[in-house]
Amino acid sequence: MRAVDIIVKKRSGGELDRREIEFLLGSYVRGEVPDYQVSAWLMAVFLQGMTIRETGALTEVMLKSGAVILLRGHESPELRGPFVDKHSTGGVGDKVSLPLAPIVAACGVQVPMMSGRALGHTGGTLDKLESIAGYRVNLSPEEFRAGIAANGFAMMGQTRDIVPADRLLYALRDVTGTVESIPLITASILSKKIAEGSDALVFDVKYGTGAFMKTIPGAEALAESLVSTATAMGKKVSALITNMNSPLGRKIGNFLEIEESVEILHGAADSGLDELRELTFALGAEMLVLGGKAVDVDEGVEQCRRAVASGKALELFLANIRTQGGDPDKILGECGKRRSPHRTLLKARQDGYITVDAYRVGLAGVTLGVGRNRTEDAVCADAGVILLAGEGDPVRRGDALMEIYGKDQGCLAPAAEALGQAVGYHQTPPARAPLIYGRKQI
Amino acid sequence: MRAVDIIVKKRSGGELDRREIEFLLGSYVRGEVPDYQVSAWLMAVFLQGMTIRETGALTEVMLKSGAVILLRGHESPELRGPFVDKHSTGGVGDKVSLPLAPIVAACGVQVPMMSGRALGHTGGTLDKLESIAGYRVNLSPEEFRAGIAANGFAMMGQTRDIVPADRLLYALRDVTGTVESIPLITASILSKKIAEGSDALVFDVKYGTGAFMKTIPGAEALAESLVSTATAMGKKVSALITNMNSPLGRKIGNFLEIEESVEILHGAADSGLDELRELTFALGAEMLVLGGKAVDVDEGVEQCRRAVASGKALELFLANIRTQGGDPDKILGECGKRRSPHRTLLKARQDGYITVDAYRVGLAGVTLGVGRNRTEDAVCADAGVILLAGEGDPVRRGDALMEIYGKDQGCLAPAAEALGQAVGYHQTPPARAPLIYGRKQI
Repeated sequence: MRAVDIIVKKRSGGELDRREIEFLLGSYVRGEVPDYQVSAWLMAVFLQGMTIRETGALTEVMLKSGAVILLRGHESPELRGPFVDKHSTGGVGDKVSLPLAPIVAACGVQVPMMSGRALGHTGGTLDKLESIAGYRVNLSPEEFRAGIAANGFAMMGQTRDIVPADRLLYALRDVTGTVESIPLITASILSKKIAEGSDALVFDVKYGTGAFMKTIPGAEALAESLVSTATAMGKKVSALITNMNSPLGRKIGNFLEIEESVEILHGAADSGLDELRELTFALGAEMLVLGGKAVDVDEGVEQCRRAVASGKALELFLANIRTQGGDPDKILGECGKRRSPHRTLLKARQDGYITVDAYRVGLAGVTLGVGRNRTEDAVCADAGVILLAGEGDPVRRGDALMEIYGKDQGCLAPAAEALGQAVGYHQTPPARAPLIYGRKQI
Repeated sequence: MRAVDIIVKKRSGGELDRREIEFLLGSYVRGEVPDYQVSAWLMAVFLQGMTIRETGALTEVMLKSGAVILLRGHESPELRGPFVDKHSTGGVGDKVSLPLAPIVAACGVQVPMMSGRALGHTGGTLDKLESIAGYRVNLSPEEFRAGIAANGFAMMGQTRDIVPADRLLYALRDVTGTVESIPLITASILSKKIAEGSDALVFDVKYGTGAFMKTIPGAEALAESLVSTATAMGKKVSALITNMNSPLGRKIGNFLEIEESVEILHGAADSGLDELRELTFALGAEMLVLGGKAVDVDEGVEQCRRAVASGKALELFLANIRTQGGDPDKILGECGKRRSPHRTLLKARQDGYITVDAYRVGLAGVTLGVGRNRTEDAVCADAGVILLAGEGDPVRRGDALMEIYGKDQGCLAPAAEALGQAVGYHQTPPARAPLIYGRKQI
């Protein structure tokens, strides 16, 4: 078998079999096939596409390039499953994972959650968790399992030995214009999610300015690919397609999103939390149905409500903080108080009903220190934005619209400028697309 | 400007401007852009295509990556032009360049001919010339100009400093499945042909089993691209689309093709030479028209005939051999006699009208030592095949069909086996496509 023949077959629109994908990627990971052949193949995949069968084969080959976390077969009566995880394609203010994991765990589904970091305009769960002093996301498989057994969920970052092929491929895609390919995205996401040992997966595929997929058809195609491929690989799976044109919730930042998650888990009645709560419960309900704990999503949503109302979910959230090295009491004490000293206020330029553009807010977040442009950059735990008015709210000229917190004094002016441009003013209430556009399952 | 943005633009179907192509290729030649970005770009070009404007820009950027041969501005009254060259896309038994250059030179057009070597099933003019003892194809620009001034034409190989970008790109295309791309082929051919200093170019674009382009539409598309791009770059140009389903002429080999060229220049009446002569004169007539020496191709063909009949073309052919280091008398003496001692005969397996497949004959030539599979392999000057019967001829079982000459004894049996498979037998005379299918000019 020769790499060039595999490239030509894909280039000509052929369907690669598993052996061919295994040969090309396996040889690449071992350093036997050079970057320049794989990048030509990636571009051929980008332009010619892949069938679900090919995408599944690619996912399996990537999965087998490294270690997988084994959750079953360990003799702990507490590590019993069902194991269900959620993956979001990323957005602005999307802290759903933080309240979701303890809510679902409280309902009897165990959540092995492996998360990522902020990059570009999108936030990262690991950076949010690390705003909790002492919190460790670099867990060993043993610690990960012990955390799930103890609290029903644990949160960790991807280790170096999980799907090393994805790191290699992603670096190459990034510099060869082959990132935005549905089959390549599918294999990248799925291989990592399957490596963490879940039985079932729920996807939150976002569309809109703040999402990776800008359009509904793009998000639908990705959701379809994720669901079809994962189903073909024997996983139980469903996907929600959700709106990311404006930030989710009212707080964008690292510690600020921990704080808003605590508010959700406290059952706060603030209407600014309605959409965040709606999405958290909707995704939680999907997880409970896939895990066999609820007969339908209505019952699942009701279970989520009760897990919050009973205080059980907050209890697990705090227990996880303690297990992973943080101080729950300290966190509770910081809520509502812990803010960067570098602050300013954005005021409304005119009267009107406002819209808030997620992408622009996300970019301003990078300026403030919430996120980063390069993976090696540090983030600021206390930077962020609090939206005092949200999408669709009526404001008057001079009203305070946003509290802005920066990593330093110098970033405030450019960030405030960018945030000002994120706000649109309208004479009449803007038409609002539903938060949850649709659902995919096979 | 960033390489990845140029890749994304092409990948998305955009038209690159000259600055972008210059940035990408210039940086690549200087080692500042890595192979893996250029290979992704090559695949994007392969699948998305290029406009004539892009192809022209690519050709110019490649041309300017190295030296060009200057024919004008040198104070030699004999080096006066017009300078016209011919390029063939390659075939089996295609020795047209050898008689063509002296014929056209005899009619007053000067021919700066830069040729290539055998690779795969196709032969190479340089290898044929080097079967002449002492003949040098590695000329300096001064020797090249002096040869043209003295004999009206000179024959040389591409030097290292001519279009270095093409060598880099070709090596990358070869291992990334991006060879068969019309714009990339066009830029590769044209940049080298323009670098040799011609005012006008005639292309012989072949189709058929023995050609690079297997189909007539493929050959038409390449001819169209070559003619349009070269015209847009200010060159006078025309192209013939010709049949390469069976070998051209009756002799395939290195010295054997020198010998058959001498037969053409002697004006030999053998009907086995008819097609070779027809194509030589047709291409010569195109060159004479583009060079302003004939008003139309009919007059051009007539001039070619006279150049042969008068002995002037043969005289120049022999003068060139002397100028470039060979012994013309020795060559004339070897004609009809110089053969490899390792020989065998292929006989007809049955009665019938025969067809002879060019591709299979070309591959058998590699086995015999006429050609090579890798550029670093040596060829054998005296190996080859003489067709005793040609396409469409009636034969009887047991008739001698081919004389086979090998580089050694061991290659004869496998080559004879392959040559046997090149022959088809038919109850009725096979339909023959015309040698010259069509012509392109703007």
